[in-house]
Amino acid sequence: MPDISAAVIGTGFIGTVHIGALRRLGIPIAGVLGSSATRGADRAAALGVAKAYASLDDLLADPAVTIVHVTSPNVAHYPQVKAILAAGKHVICEKPLAMTAAQSAEMLALARASGLIAAVCYNTRFYPLNQHAHGMTKSGELGELRLITGQFHQDWLAKDTDWNWRLEADEGGPLRSVSDIGTHWIDLTSFITGQKPTDVMAELATFIPDRQKPLGPVETFTTATGATETRRITTDDAATLLLRYENGGRGVLTTSQISRGRKGLLTWDISGSKASAAWSGENPDALWIGHRDQPNQILLRDPSLMNPLGAAASALPGGHAEGFADTWTAFFRQVYADVAQGRRAPTATYAGFEDGHYEMQFCDAVLESARTGTWVTIR
Amino acid sequence: MPDISAAVIGTGFIGTVHIGALRRLGIPIAGVLGSSATRGADRAAALGVAKAYASLDDLLADPAVTIVHVTSPNVAHYPQVKAILAAGKHVICEKPLAMTAAQSAEMLALARASGLIAAVCYNTRFYPLNQHAHGMTKSGELGELRLITGQFHQDWLAKDTDWNWRLEADEGGPLRSVSDIGTHWIDLTSFITGQKPTDVMAELATFIPDRQKPLGPVETFTTATGATETRRITTDDAATLLLRYENGGRGVLTTSQISRGRKGLLTWDISGSKASAAWSGENPDALWIGHRDQPNQILLRDPSLMNPLGAAASALPGGHAEGFADTWTAFFRQVYADVAQGRRAPTATYAGFEDGHYEMQFCDAVLESARTGTWVTIR
Amino acid sequence: MPDISAAVIGTGFIGTVHIGALRRLGIPIAGVLGSSATRGADRAAALGVAKAYASLDDLLADPAVTIVHVTSPNVAHYPQVKAILAAGKHVICEKPLAMTAAQSAEMLALARASGLIAAVCYNTRFYPLNQHAHGMTKSGELGELRLITGQFHQDWLAKDTDWNWRLEADEGGPLRSVSDIGTHWIDLTSFITGQKPTDVMAELATFIPDRQKPLGPVETFTTATGATETRRITTDDAATLLLRYENGGRGVLTTSQISRGRKGLLTWDISGSKASAAWSGENPDALWIGHRDQPNQILLRDPSLMNPLGAAASALPGGHAEGFADTWTAFFRQVYADVAQGRRAPTATYAGFEDGHYEMQFCDAVLESARTGTWVTIR
Amino acid sequence: MPDISAAVIGTGFIGTVHIGALRRLGIPIAGVLGSSATRGADRAAALGVAKAYASLDDLLADPAVTIVHVTSPNVAHYPQVKAILAAGKHVICEKPLAMTAAQSAEMLALARASGLIAAVCYNTRFYPLNQHAHGMTKSGELGELRLITGQFHQDWLAKDTDWNWRLEADEGGPLRSVSDIGTHWIDLTSFITGQKPTDVMAELATFIPDRQKPLGPVETFTTATGATETRRITTDDAATLLLRYENGGRGVLTTSQISRGRKGLLTWDISGSKASAAWSGENPDALWIGHRDQPNQILLRDPSLMNPLGAAASALPGGHAEGFADTWTAFFRQVYADVAQGRRAPTATYAGFEDGHYEMQFCDAVLESARTGTWVTIR
Repeated sequence: MPDISAAVIGTGFIGTVHIGALRRLGIPIAGVLGSSATRGADRAAALGVAKAYASLDDLLADPAVTIVHVTSPNVAHYPQVKAILAAGKHVICEKPLAMTAAQSAEMLALARASGLIAAVCYNTRFYPLNQHAHGMTKSGELGELRLITGQFHQDWLAKDTDWNWRLEADEGGPLRSVSDIGTHWIDLTSFITGQKPTDVMAELATFIPDRQKPLGPVETFTTATGATETRRITTDDAATLLLRYENGGRGVLTTSQISRGRKGLLTWDISGSKASAAWSGENPDALWIGHRDQPNQILLRDPSLMNPLGAAASALPGGHAEGFADTWTAFFRQVYADVAQGRRAPTATYAGFEDGHYEMQFCDAVLESARTGTWVTIR
Repeated sequence: MPDISAAVIGTGFIGTVHIGALRRLGIPIAGVLGSSATRGADRAAALGVAKAYASLDDLLADPAVTIVHVTSPNVAHYPQVKAILAAGKHVICEKPLAMTAAQSAEMLALARASGLIAAVCYNTRFYPLNQHAHGMTKSGELGELRLITGQFHQDWLAKDTDWNWRLEADEGGPLRSVSDIGTHWIDLTSFITGQKPTDVMAELATFIPDRQKPLGPVETFTTATGATETRRITTDDAATLLLRYENGGRGVLTTSQISRGRKGLLTWDISGSKASAAWSGENPDALWIGHRDQPNQILLRDPSLMNPLGAAASALPGGHAEGFADTWTAFFRQVYADVAQGRRAPTATYAGFEDGHYEMQFCDAVLESARTGTWVTIR
Repeated sequence: MPDISAAVIGTGFIGTVHIGALRRLGIPIAGVLGSSATRGADRAAALGVAKAYASLDDLLADPAVTIVHVTSPNVAHYPQVKAILAAGKHVICEKPLAMTAAQSAEMLALARASGLIAAVCYNTRFYPLNQHAHGMTKSGELGELRLITGQFHQDWLAKDTDWNWRLEADEGGPLRSVSDIGTHWIDLTSFITGQKPTDVMAELATFIPDRQKPLGPVETFTTATGATETRRITTDDAATLLLRYENGGRGVLTTSQISRGRKGLLTWDISGSKASAAWSGENPDALWIGHRDQPNQILLRDPSLMNPLGAAASALPGGHAEGFADTWTAFFRQVYADVAQGRRAPTATYAGFEDGHYEMQFCDAVLESARTGTWVTIR
Repeated sequence: MPDISAAVIGTGFIGTVHIGALRRLGIPIAGVLGSSATRGADRAAALGVAKAYASLDDLLADPAVTIVHVTSPNVAHYPQVKAILAAGKHVICEKPLAMTAAQSAEMLALARASGLIAAVCYNTRFYPLNQHAHGMTKSGELGELRLITGQFHQDWLAKDTDWNWRLEADEGGPLRSVSDIGTHWIDLTSFITGQKPTDVMAELATFIPDRQKPLGPVETFTTATGATETRRITTDDAATLLLRYENGGRGVLTTSQISRGRKGLLTWDISGSKASAAWSGENPDALWIGHRDQPNQILLRDPSLMNPLGAAASALPGGHAEGFADTWTAFFRQVYADVAQGRRAPTATYAGFEDGHYEMQFCDAVLESARTGTWVTIR
C-alpha cells in the first residue's frame, strides 16, 4: 500500500498489539506517541519503532502520517480524535470512543463531515467465524432472531489488590465492565445480527468497593507491587442486563471482571426461528450451529467451508488455529484497503463512529436504567 | 425397606421415570392411577404394574400405600396433594407444586401440620456434582457468592406445530418456560448456594403466539399427527430474568423452549470471592472449578474425590457415567430413608414443600415484574 | 414378562449393577449366589433380595430360575456357564467369557447345541449412540472404513498400593488391561463397524512390577487398608496395539489402567471414505460426525434424531442424560425379549458367545504378538 | 535487532507465514526467492517485499542477508541448505530437513562445523502450553513418563481429486503423512518429554492408490480445477505406529491425511507416574493436567499461571487466544536472539539440525519397519 503510513498514540498493551498487526501487514509505522515524551522514546526503542513524537501536535505535523491509531486512555480519545480529523488524517480509535455520548455525537459529526475513514476497534468482529455468523443472519439462515444471550467474564480485577486506571471513574468513565468489555459484546452481537438493542434494563454491582491503588504506575494486565492507598470504587465490577430488540427479540448480557477462572470468556448464543448459533472466544475457531430436526453442527474455521465474509477474514487454511492477534490483521487489512480507496467500501464490516457513538448511548442508557431500576430506551 | 409401598399418580413420561427409579431401589409399587380408569389400566399393563386404581379415593383407601407420587398435570397437584395428606400418606409431588402461591401456601401449612414427608421433585439437585457443589458453598470454598448466571434452554416447543398441555394457561398455569424449567434452575441454584433470590426483574416473550393444537391426545416430548386447530398462546416461550440475592449477590437466568439444538441445556455458573464453579446438564459428571492464581479444575464425578454429600448421591465409581435416571434413585433413596424414619432428617437435601411454595411465590413475582416492568420483591 | 425369573452369581460392584437393571425392568430376581454362603446371605440382605443360594447346585435346582447372570471372577466363568447350560437355563456372562480360547470354544459349542440364549456383557454397545453408529456404518453413511483408533484409559490401578484380583494372572488371566477393558473396545468397535480385526501387533507394559497386596479382601474400585505383602505382577498395566481389518482398514488401540486423571476414558474414532464418526464414554450422549465438505456434526442423543437402532436403545427423550446404568437396561431389555421368544432375534445387537469367544482368540493373539514382536493372525 | 536481515526461499503458504512473522517482529526482509524468477517477482509484489532474487546464487551474494529461511519443497532443502551454510549465513529450514538421513547427517555435520545457527521449523513446540509442558516434565511434575499417545489427523487429501506435490515420492520423499505431519508429533512429544523414541513398529496405508493429478500448478491447501491425469500413489495416506522409549516408556502415534472432519487435529497425551497431561492443537490455549487424588486441571494459557518457559513464549495475557501465527513469532524471536548473539543459547528450545536429522532417521526406521513388519531400532 504505497504512500500510507501509520502513527500510533499509546504504547501500552493494546498499542503494542496495533503495532504488531501493522507490521505483519507490511504497513510502515511513522512513529509513536507515548503518555510522556520520555515514555514514548523508551517504548519506541523497545519496540524498534524509528520515531517517538514529542506531542500530538508534533505527530499531526508529520506529513508522512496518513492515519492515526488512538490507543490512549479513554479520557483522551475525544480531544485527540478531534485534532486528528481536523488535521485531515484518517483515524482508528480504541473503544469506548469517548467518555460521553455528547462527545461521541460530536466526533461522529466531525468524521462524517470530513469524509475521512473513522474506525472503532471492536476487533472481535474479525474472528472469522463472527464474520461468517454475520453472513448467516444476513442470508436468513437462522430465520427471525428471537433470543440473544451471552457474557464477557474476566478475572483480572477479582482481588482488591488488582489495579488499573479503568477502576476510577474520572479516567475510565462512570462504567467499567459494561464500557470496557460489555460494549464489545453489544457491538459484536449487533454486528452479527444486524440489530442494535432499543431498550435496556441494567443492574450494576461493585462487589469490591475498596481497592488498593499502587502509588507507582501499572500496566494493563499486570500486577503492581509496592506501596498502595485505599480508594473507594464506584465503577461496576459486574453488570447484568436485559435487552429488547426492534424486531421483538430479547437479550441478556452479563459482564464481570471478578469471575475467577474466566480469563476473558466472551460468548454469544442466538436462537433463531430456523436455527441457532453460538460461539465462545475461548475456542474462537469453532462455531456451533443448532438444529431441531437434524444433528447440530460444529463449523471449524476453514475458508473452504465458510461464506465469503468468513473466508475473507481468514488468514490461514483450516486446521491452523487463529487467535486474537489475527483479528487485528483482518480488521486493519479492511480499514487500510478503504484508506487506499479514500472511502469506506459498502461491504466493509468494521465498526465506524456511528457504532462507537451507539455504544456511548448504550452506556448512558445503562447508567440511567441502573439508577432508576426501569427499562430505558437507548437514544 | 419393610412395609413401605408406593402409589404413582400419572403414567406419562415422568410417571414412568418414577416407577423405574422405585423399582431399581426395590420399593414395592402398590398401583398407579391414570388420567382415566381405562388409560390407567392400559399403562399398568404396559408397565407391568399389578394394579390400576379406579380413582384417587380408591388409591387412598388402599392401606398398603405408604406414600404417593403425584405426576399428574400441574392443575391437579393441589386437590390431589390435599387429599393425600388428609389420608395420612406421605407425598412426593412433581413441580410446580401448585397453580398459585395461595394453593402452595395452604399445601405447605397442611404438610407441616401433618408431620408427613412432603417432597417436591426438583431432581436436578441429585446430580452428584450438584450435591458436591452445595457442600462446597456450605464449607466456604467459593467464598462470598457474587454472581450467579445460567440458563435452561430446550427446543421441543420451537415449532408452531409442537403441542403440549403446558402451552395453555388453564392447564399449566400462566407461566410456562419459567414454571416448567425456570423453577428447576432457581431451585437448583438456591440449593447449591443456600440463598433464594429476594427480588426479580423479568421479561417474558411469546415468540409463537399462534400454535396448532392437535384434536387428539399428545404425550410430552412427542410430536402429534392428525387434525389441529389454531390456538392463541399467552404463556412464555422464553424469559429473561435478573435476580438479586440477600447477600448483595446478583443473578441472571434465561429460559427458553424454542432454542433449536438445545435439547435440555441446564447450566449454572457461580462467581465467588475465593473461587468459581460451573456445571452443565449436558455433561453432568463434570464440575468446573475456577481459580485466579492456579489452573482451573475439572472434577469428574468420582466418590473418592468428592465431599460426603456428593459421594452419597453417587451410585457408581468414577469413570461410569451417571445420568437423569440416576438422579431419581438418589433422590428417592433419601426420601424413603426419611419415610422409614418417619421424619425429615436434618441432613436431607431434597426439596420440601417450603421450597415448592417459594417457587410459586417466585412465579407470582415474575408475572408481576413482567407486567409492570419493574423489580418485584418475592414474598 | 410372565414366568421369567433371574438369578445372579456374584454380588460385588457389577453384580449389583445387574440387579438394579433387572429391577428397573421389573424382572423378578429369584436369588443371588455369593462367593461364599455367608457373603451371599449378607449381600442378599443388604440388597433386599429374597434368597441367597447356598451353592451353584442349589441355584440350578431352583425351577423358578429361567436365566442366570454370571458376574463372578473370570476364572469361574467356564465351569459355571457349563453347568448353567447343562441345567437348561439361559445365561448372561460377564466378560471376558473365559480364561482361554479353548474354554470359550467349548462354551460356544455348548451354547449353540443348547439353543439357549447366551449373551456376553459388552454393555457399552448399548450406549444409544453406539447403536446409532452401528446403524450408520451398516447403511453405508461412513463409506468404506479406513482407520479406527481409540483408547480405554483408567487410573484406578495407578499406584503400587492399588490392588484387585485382576492383577494376578492366576485369577484374572495372563492379560489385564487388554482383557478387562481392551476387549470392551474391540467388541464395541467390531460391533459398530461390523468388522473384527484379523491381525494384531501388540506391546504389553507392566510399569509397576511390584505391588502391595492387602492381606484382607478388597472390593473392585475401592482402596484397601491394613497389612500388605509385596507381589510381583506380570499382567499388563497398559498395552499398545496395531490392528488390521479384513477390508484393508487399520486400527490402533491403547489400554491403560495407570493413566492418572482418566477415570474410564473409552473413546473411538472412525475415518470412513464418506464421513467420520467419534465418541467418548466421558460424554456418551454426544456423537461427533466428521465431514470434508460441510460442517462437522454433533448428534445429541435424541430418539427423534436417531436411526431405529439408536432410538430403540434410548430410555429417555433428548435433553435427559443417559449413563452407564441405562446401558444395562437397554441390553437386558433386548436379551429378555429374546428369552421370552426362546431364541435370539435376527435384529439382536447384544454380544453372543461367538463374540465372547472371538475376544478370547484376540487375547491369545495379543499374548503371542507381544512375546514374538510380530504381527499375529487372530484365529 | 540491528544489522540482521532475512531472505526467504519459497513464497507459498508457509513462506508467507514466515514473512508475516518476520514482519511482526520488525525484522527486515531483504528479499524472496520463488520457484522461478517470474513467480518470485509476482509473489514479491503481492507480498510487498522489495526484492525478488533471480537465483539462489543471487540471494547468497547479497551481503545484506544474515539468515535464510528455506520453505521450498522437501527435495530442495539439501542443496539449498548446503549452499547457505557454505555462504556463511544462518539458516532456518522447513521440515523435513532432507530427503534421506544420509543428507541430513551431512547437513548436521556442516552446520556444526560452521558454528552458524541452524534451526528446523518444528513450530508447534512454540504453542506456549507446549513450552510449559516441557518445563513440567523437566521439573519432574509428571514423574516417570510411561505412556505417550496421540495423533495428527487431517482431511485435506481425503478425496482422490485432492492433489499436492507431497503425494509423489520423488518430490516429497517415500513417506507422506509420517514425514509431513508425523514428524511434527514426534518432534513435539520428544521436546516435551526430553526423550526420543528408540524403536518403532510401523504400518503404512495408502487407501487411495489412484489419484487425479492436475496438469496445472496447485497451491498447498487449495483445490485445483481443470484437466487431470491418473497417478499411482505409493506414499502413506495414514500410518499407525508403536514406539518404545529409552526409559521403558511406550508410545502410539496415528497419522492421517484422509480423516474427514479433522482439519489438523494434533493431540498428545502423556501418562506419568505422578500426573498426566494432554493437549490438542484444536484448542491450543488449554492444557489438561490429570490427577488421581485430586480434581483434574485445565490450565488456560496465561503468563501469570505458567512456568518461565511457557510465559516466555506467550505474546498475550490470558483471555486473548493465541494461534498458529503466534507460534512463529515466538519461534523466530528465540532464533533471532541467538543470531544476534552469534550462538545457540543453552536455554534455547527450538529444534536444531540434530533434531531434524533424528526425524530423518526416524522416517528411515518407519520405512524399514513397515516393509519388514518388525520392530526397528532408530539410528
